[in-house]
Amino acid sequence: MDFTNYTLIMPIIGIVGILAAFIIYLAVKKQPDGNDKMREIAASIHEGAMAFLFREYKVLAVFIIIVAALMIFAPGLGIKTALAFVFGAVSSVLAGFFGMSAATKANVRTSEAARSSGIAKALSVSYNGGAVMGLAVASLGLFGVGILYILLGTPENAQYINGFAMGASSIALFSRVGGGIYTKAADVGADLVGKVEAGIPEDDPRNPGVIADNVGDNVGDIAGMGADIFESYVGSIIATIAIAATATTATVATLATGVNPSQAEIDATRSALMLTPVMFAALGLIASLVGVISMKILKNSGPAKALRYSTFIGAGLFLIFAYFCVTGILSLSTNVFFAVLCGTLAGTFIGLVTEFYTSGSPMMRIARASKTGPATNIIQGFAVGLESTIWPILIICIAIIVSFQLAGLYGIGIAAVGMLATVGVTMTVDAYGPIADNAGGISEMSGLGSDVRKITDNLDSLGNTTAAMGKGFAIGSAALTALALFSAYAAAVKIESINLTDPLVIVGTFIGGLLPFIVGALTMTSVGKAAGKMVEEIRKQFREIPGLLEGKEGAKPDPKRCVDISTSAALKEMILPGVLAAVMPVLIGFTLGKEALGGMLGGATVTGVLLALLMANSGGAWDNAKKAIEKGDVEGESKGGEAHKAAVVGDTVGDPFKDTSGPAMNILIKLMSIVALIIAPILANL
Amino acid sequence: MDFTNYTLIMPIIGIVGILAAFIIYLAVKKQPDGNDKMREIAASIHEGAMAFLFREYKVLAVFIIIVAALMIFAPGLGIKTALAFVFGAVSSVLAGFFGMSAATKANVRTSEAARSSGIAKALSVSYNGGAVMGLAVASLGLFGVGILYILLGTPENAQYINGFAMGASSIALFSRVGGGIYTKAADVGADLVGKVEAGIPEDDPRNPGVIADNVGDNVGDIAGMGADIFESYVGSIIATIAIAATATTATVATLATGVNPSQAEIDATRSALMLTPVMFAALGLIASLVGVISMKILKNSGPAKALRYSTFIGAGLFLIFAYFCVTGILSLSTNVFFAVLCGTLAGTFIGLVTEFYTSGSPMMRIARASKTGPATNIIQGFAVGLESTIWPILIICIAIIVSFQLAGLYGIGIAAVGMLATVGVTMTVDAYGPIADNAGGISEMSGLGSDVRKITDNLDSLGNTTAAMGKGFAIGSAALTALALFSAYAAAVKIESINLTDPLVIVGTFIGGLLPFIVGALTMTSVGKAAGKMVEEIRKQFREIPGLLEGKEGAKPDPKRCVDISTSAALKEMILPGVLAAVMPVLIGFTLGKEALGGMLGGATVTGVLLALLMANSGGAWDNAKKAIEKGDVEGESKGGEAHKAAVVGDTVGDPFKDTSGPAMNILIKLMSIVALIIAPILANL
Repeated sequence: MDFTNYTLIMPIIGIVGILAAFIIYLAVKKQPDGNDKMREIAASIHEGAMAFLFREYKVLAVFIIIVAALMIFAPGLGIKTALAFVFGAVSSVLAGFFGMSAATKANVRTSEAARSSGIAKALSVSYNGGAVMGLAVASLGLFGVGILYILLGTPENAQYINGFAMGASSIALFSRVGGGIYTKAADVGADLVGKVEAGIPEDDPRNPGVIADNVGDNVGDIAGMGADIFESYVGSIIATIAIAATATTATVATLATGVNPSQAEIDATRSALMLTPVMFAALGLIASLVGVISMKILKNSGPAKALRYSTFIGAGLFLIFAYFCVTGILSLSTNVFFAVLCGTLAGTFIGLVTEFYTSGSPMMRIARASKTGPATNIIQGFAVGLESTIWPILIICIAIIVSFQLAGLYGIGIAAVGMLATVGVTMTVDAYGPIADNAGGISEMSGLGSDVRKITDNLDSLGNTTAAMGKGFAIGSAALTALALFSAYAAAVKIESINLTDPLVIVGTFIGGLLPFIVGALTMTSVGKAAGKMVEEIRKQFREIPGLLEGKEGAKPDPKRCVDISTSAALKEMILPGVLAAVMPVLIGFTLGKEALGGMLGGATVTGVLLALLMANSGGAWDNAKKAIEKGDVEGESKGGEAHKAAVVGDTVGDPFKDTSGPAMNILIKLMSIVALIIAPILANL
Repeated sequence: MDFTNYTLIMPIIGIVGILAAFIIYLAVKKQPDGNDKMREIAASIHEGAMAFLFREYKVLAVFIIIVAALMIFAPGLGIKTALAFVFGAVSSVLAGFFGMSAATKANVRTSEAARSSGIAKALSVSYNGGAVMGLAVASLGLFGVGILYILLGTPENAQYINGFAMGASSIALFSRVGGGIYTKAADVGADLVGKVEAGIPEDDPRNPGVIADNVGDNVGDIAGMGADIFESYVGSIIATIAIAATATTATVATLATGVNPSQAEIDATRSALMLTPVMFAALGLIASLVGVISMKILKNSGPAKALRYSTFIGAGLFLIFAYFCVTGILSLSTNVFFAVLCGTLAGTFIGLVTEFYTSGSPMMRIARASKTGPATNIIQGFAVGLESTIWPILIICIAIIVSFQLAGLYGIGIAAVGMLATVGVTMTVDAYGPIADNAGGISEMSGLGSDVRKITDNLDSLGNTTAAMGKGFAIGSAALTALALFSAYAAAVKIESINLTDPLVIVGTFIGGLLPFIVGALTMTSVGKAAGKMVEEIRKQFREIPGLLEGKEGAKPDPKRCVDISTSAALKEMILPGVLAAVMPVLIGFTLGKEALGGMLGGATVTGVLLALLMANSGGAWDNAKKAIEKGDVEGESKGGEAHKAAVVGDTVGDPFKDTSGPAMNILIKLMSIVALIIAPILANL
């Protein structure tokens, strides 16, 4: 069967998604943006965020140009890989830029909606702000992969598409690490002086670090997160294409519908298998669009339900579409559908486990441990983080076994695609959180009063839960994507076995296992250093600007200096982890060999996923434990008491865990796998 | 060549070592044991420790009997493995019991020596107390392996010797985990109420938890550490015997001296290779004895130098002996010697790196970060811990590559033996630390005055450094031992390849990687829970015993209740991690298969070693950062200030890191490997 017509539709669906995102963007922009004070604050946040992005992109451009040049001259890669690479990088940048522009418009409009119209409207504005990011990620990803698929979607040429994933990965690592350092340096610094030393509330306008903190939410949790998910999304699709392109005839035959298929049928099945991940992305985008639009009706049923149902609508519709597509258009074994289902279920379960650990009884153990001081809070939080790895890992293991039984290595790739297909709506929910957080900050800084603040707090705390779930989801999908890339690597590099009893493979595994620890050390140290500088600057302003701390009329902080500190620190400190992740696979591959590189990828995936879960979940639980004490959920304790102070320490420790080092792990393992896949043709010929 | 005569000498050298330990024990016991007050305190510590050991051994006896019974009926294991297993367990128990008896005599005598004779004498008494443990571990290990070697030291029967290592491993895991929970529940609990809440100094006699804390030093750092090292020691020897017994003829031929050896020469070489690890243990014991005795002269050159030189004398002599033994008696390739050298050097370098991270500039970064509060102290400490894994892992990787190049898998085993051969003297130095720590506690509690306390503090802080180095060493040797056991497993289970691209192997690797996280979670939670109970009990005593906190004459705490809390908690909480480690290899081996079990061992070794390094080094560095502030090494800060309080939080968090969860990792990975090796004959026939 010839799928050419379907192939041509893919990028068109991508363009439709981009248009939808643009329409939503215009609708958000049309909303009222409050009073002068609010506009002024929002403008500072917008400018700070844009200034950072532009400076970041300049640094990234250098990296992209160097790597592209190397690719052109590398045997087996050449101009096609280099162009795909640049295309991937530019697409990721565009998605991040577009999403962040919307987010920094939506934040102040959410505040204004909360003030003038109430919670349903505020939910709708912040959700739509997030939807621009969500749809941009999904549409640009689909558009890019779709175009490349038309140009290179044959078993012989498919390897050049890998460049697109690597471009996306490179942007992702730098954005995530840079954004993570930016946001946490500002957050930790502002909290340490503001909340702990000066005893003023969060987001107090007197605190010079608050604008930087709010900028950080955008560059870290919107642009950084978006690039991360964009990468998983295109990575899973491309890895699955690569697996299908290189699968053995026997494997392909098992996934055809008929018994004993002819060679022509097998070729058609291979084409179908290669097209499947792209098609699923398109179906997922359509389903996501419906999910996003359904918020128009859902918004009146309360924010928690509305967010959950919009995601379920997207996922449910996608599964229905996928079933008919697999059995109908593509004429594939239903096993392919069940592998997708397996991925979707695994993603959902991991999200639920994450919610339990960060908001359920384990989180309350941390809250209660705060009664005996910060040390027991930290010990308990770390223990909860370690424990929280159990179920996600077991779920991932079950997903691997089941999807492999269903459809071989291809099944693992398809499961990852299944987790990520409805990224349009899941990323919307993720991006909604920081917008609500920003709206709260703007309300506080412009003194909109406690009623408004209550609405934004409500939306914000919901955002914390969705963010934690989104992180669990991001880790799960990263694990499966990395494994799919790993399988693609093993096939591309033409090795029979990556044998763990071979000492070089063991050495590779050790080095791979070590890398997440190194990146964790680098990023945590960076946050520590930058936060230290931030603390000094804020202390200095409190000391030197007369009347600032007392809140005298006309005494204004100088937020620009804090923004500068975060910006410079982030740009400087993101280089080393990024370069390390890009260079290590090349180094190990060309010195210890392709088997050792395989071992390295395996080791890095295992410890990377474990560390990411530990850090994301303990960080989320520490955050919520502090909130639980504030809400009075711990008997005899309240805001400002000793237990609360102990919980604030935990929350501060958790900040770089969950927002800098933890998320860097996901990308690290994916970037290294994709680099390995890119250099596989060269290694295969050594 | 016939080595029968040499074989017979091995257990005799073991008996000589035991006699030497006993003579040193009597010499320590003859030292004056101070005034009535001191004797009374020492008696409480001794009784508490012995009571715990006996109750612990009762629990272990049940486990040992059940496992031995299972072994008797398991096909391929039978009565021989069961007997070796019981023998190993009993030997480990004896070493722990003997060493701890000496330690709880040496502590008070060290205090008295510090009071009446000065630092040289105090060093000598505490060192000799440690030497009883060091020599007991080495001698009983050599004796046990030596006897079994005479009975079963042929390629056909060697597999039964594995039972001995498993017996040692089982005792080690329970002792380490139980002892670790005991000591840290008491330490954390006593510190939280005493130092932080009540503001009384460490080891203050008013604090009811202090006796339990001092008991904990003995059961955790002496008995627990001894069992850990005993296990590595016999594990490395036995793994190497197993590798030699199953090595291919070609491999054996490369390690013979001549070119193109005859079959007779190859057989002789195999016998020599099997005997080598046992012989190295004997040579190491003799060298250690010389090192220990040399302290008689060295003690006057200052404690730091004396400790270092006694270790160097042991290691240097051993290397000389080993060289002549390899080239002379055993007629083996000098490569075998170089593999030993490689292990010894790697162990030394890891120790030095550990010293740098826990006492050098990274530690000072933590101390300075305390200026901005507990949160930055914790973030920085965690970052340092992550960073501290880099060099040890690279050193282990280099050791693997070099020793493998020199002598194949056998080389890796021999490198592990090389690291551990002089355990007699390195364990002496390890055990000296807690004795000095106890001596400090006894001095404080019996009010011996600041001059005496200064001497014991000096010895104690030196002990912290040696303990940190000892931990680094223990981790390095555990890694190599686990790898040697892993290689022995792969050979015994007769698999060609543990292929990382096989999804079941990947699943095994994930589950293996997860296990250290689970054990970490369990042990940290246990410490948290038990410390919480301890805090309540101490608070209650301060509240209910009139005049206790004010230090009124006649107002005495009731330390027994605290001892009971630690004892019950430790005995209850050690079960689950211990059983988990013993059961998981069996479960995975029989459900997912022998390849998946191989993956599990690989994954567990990688994350286990990384977590162990992270936890041991961050814990040690937090401890020393607090001490650095106390000593005035951080400008503008001193004891009792805000930075110091922040550093105390870090130190408390570090306690379970370095003394409970971290050390449990070493044993976990070794125990799982040895269980896998034991069940290998059954798996091979499935």
